[in-house]
Amino acid sequence: MGDERGGLLARRRRPTRSSGDAERDLAEIADEARAVCAESGLALASLRGVGVSVPGPLDPERGVLLDPPNLAGWREVPIRRLLEASLGLPVQVENDANAAALAEHRFGAGRGFRHLAYLTMSTGVGAGLVLDGKLYAGRQGMAGEVGHAPVEWDGEPCACGLRGCLEAYVGGAAWTRRLARTTPAGSRVAALAGSPERARPEHVVEAARAGDAFALAELARFNDYLARGLTALVFVLAPEVVILGTIPTAAGEQLCLAPVREQVKARLWPRLARELRILPSGLGEDRPYLAGICAALEAEGAGRP
Amino acid sequence: MGDERGGLLARRRRPTRSSGDAERDLAEIADEARAVCAESGLALASLRGVGVSVPGPLDPERGVLLDPPNLAGWREVPIRRLLEASLGLPVQVENDANAAALAEHRFGAGRGFRHLAYLTMSTGVGAGLVLDGKLYAGRQGMAGEVGHAPVEWDGEPCACGLRGCLEAYVGGAAWTRRLARTTPAGSRVAALAGSPERARPEHVVEAARAGDAFALAELARFNDYLARGLTALVFVLAPEVVILGTIPTAAGEQLCLAPVREQVKARLWPRLARELRILPSGLGEDRPYLAGICAALEAEGAGRP
Repeated sequence: MGDERGGLLARRRRPTRSSGDAERDLAEIADEARAVCAESGLALASLRGVGVSVPGPLDPERGVLLDPPNLAGWREVPIRRLLEASLGLPVQVENDANAAALAEHRFGAGRGFRHLAYLTMSTGVGAGLVLDGKLYAGRQGMAGEVGHAPVEWDGEPCACGLRGCLEAYVGGAAWTRRLARTTPAGSRVAALAGSPERARPEHVVEAARAGDAFALAELARFNDYLARGLTALVFVLAPEVVILGTIPTAAGEQLCLAPVREQVKARLWPRLARELRILPSGLGEDRPYLAGICAALEAEGAGRP
Repeated sequence: MGDERGGLLARRRRPTRSSGDAERDLAEIADEARAVCAESGLALASLRGVGVSVPGPLDPERGVLLDPPNLAGWREVPIRRLLEASLGLPVQVENDANAAALAEHRFGAGRGFRHLAYLTMSTGVGAGLVLDGKLYAGRQGMAGEVGHAPVEWDGEPCACGLRGCLEAYVGGAAWTRRLARTTPAGSRVAALAGSPERARPEHVVEAARAGDAFALAELARFNDYLARGLTALVFVLAPEVVILGTIPTAAGEQLCLAPVREQVKARLWPRLARELRILPSGLGEDRPYLAGICAALEAEGAGRP
C-alpha cells in the first residue's frame, strides 16, 4: 500500500496460492487487503484504487486473466470485476512486465526517460514498454513478448511450443532445465546447488563471481543470447533505455551488464548504440509494491509522470 | 498538393537531383512548389503547411537530414529551416517510412486500426510505426529500423556494415546485387532483364507469374526471410496490421502475401496470429503525395485521425 510518489505505507507478501477455485482465492486476497488496511488504521474507502500485477496472458481492458500456465484453476478469471465487487474500489489489472515497466519509469532506473523497455528476466522473459511516456500494450495487451522473438533459427525448443525463442536461452526456467543436464558433477555450481540436478541461475552467478570456468562459460552464453534479443528490440523501438530484470540485476555489472552492453553495441549502428543505456532494475525489493501502485495509477489515467 | 481528407489538387513528380549543393537543390524545390501553386491558382500563403518525406537518417525534431547514403552533398541539411525561410510556411520533415505509415493509417490499408506497422520495401527496408493511433518515432526518430534486425546470425553482409540484417535478404538493392550473381544465363529472368547482370526484383516477379522455377525459388527465399523479420516485429509490438510496401504489393497475393502470412503465423503464438492482418499497401500511385500531406499534418499536431 502506498502513494503516487512511491511512499509505501504497508507491505505484505504471501505466496501465490491456487486452490483450484479462483473465486475463493480472490476472496482470500481481498480479505488480506482489508486486513492490511485495518492494521494500518486506514479505511478501505479512503484508497484511490487497487492495482493488480499478474503474469499474463491477460485481457487488460476487461481485467481478465486468460490462461496462466502456472496457476491451476485460473482460467478466464475476471479479476477486476470480482475484486471491484468485493472491495468497492476501482481495480486495474496489468501484466507484470507492464506494471514493472511503469514502476521503473516512475520510480526506478527509467525516471526522466520518454522511451524505455523493461525486461522481466526471472522464470520467463517479457518486456513492458513505455513509449512517448505512456504504457504501450499493443493489440489485446500482447505487445512486449520479446522473449519469444527468435534468436536462433530452428534452435532450442521453447516452453511456448516454438523454437529458438530468446526465453529458451535466457529464461530462468529454461536455463535451470539446461543446467540440470550440463552442470558437471563435482563442479562448484553442483556443490553450491547440492547436486547438478538442483543447479539454478543463482548458483551460476555465485560460482562465476569466484572465477569458476563452467559458470563463466554459461554466463557468456546467456549474455550472448540476451544481446541478440536486445538487438532486434532496439532496432525496432530505439528506446533511450533498456532495463534488465532479475537475473542480470543479480549478476551485476561485471558478469552481465557490461558484457551485454558491449555485445549489443557491436551489433547496432553507432548512432543507435551511442546513447543507449542498458541498466539494472532500480527498484530493489519493493518492485512488486511499486508495480501495483503504478497499475492502480493507470486506472486513473494518471500513470504519466 | 491536397487536403486532409486525401483530396489531391495537384501532382508533380521529378527525379531527386543532387547537384552537390543542397541549398541550391532546395531552392529549386521551393521554386517548383511556387510554380505548382501558381498553376493551380492557389496563393502559397493559403496553404496550411508543407510536408517533406525523405529517406533517413533524419533529426525529425529539427527537420535536419543527416547523411543520406544516396544523396551526394546532402549532409546535415536543415531542410525545415531552409524551406520555411523560402516559402514562409510551416514545414515538417518526416522519414519516408513514417510518412507512409501515417498515410496508410489515414487514407490506406491501415484505416480504422490503432496499431500498425508499414514496411517500406523498395531499395531498402524500414518501418513506420503508428501505435495507439500516433506516430511512434523513438529516440531521435530512429525507431522502425526493422530492416536491420538480424534474420540470420553472421549471415550475408548488409550495406549498413552489419551482417544478417533483414534488408540484406529482402531489400531491393541487396536482392538486385544477388540476382546479378545467381540469375542463370538463358533463364526467363535473364531474358526479361536483357542479361543476368540486369536482373531486378520486378523481373523475378514477372517470371514467377509465368511459373519459372528459378524465379519461384527466389521468391520463396524472399518470403521466408521476410516472415522471419516480421515475427520479431509482431512479438515486440503486437500490431493489428502490418502493411507491406512496394515489392510485396507488386508481387501480390499469391506470390508473396499469402505465403508470408502463412509462414509468419506458423512462427507466432495462435493468439498473436489469429487476428493479425498482413496487407498490401492501400495507397497506390499517390502514396508520395499522401505521405507528404500526412507529414504536414503532423506539424499541426493534427495527425491523429
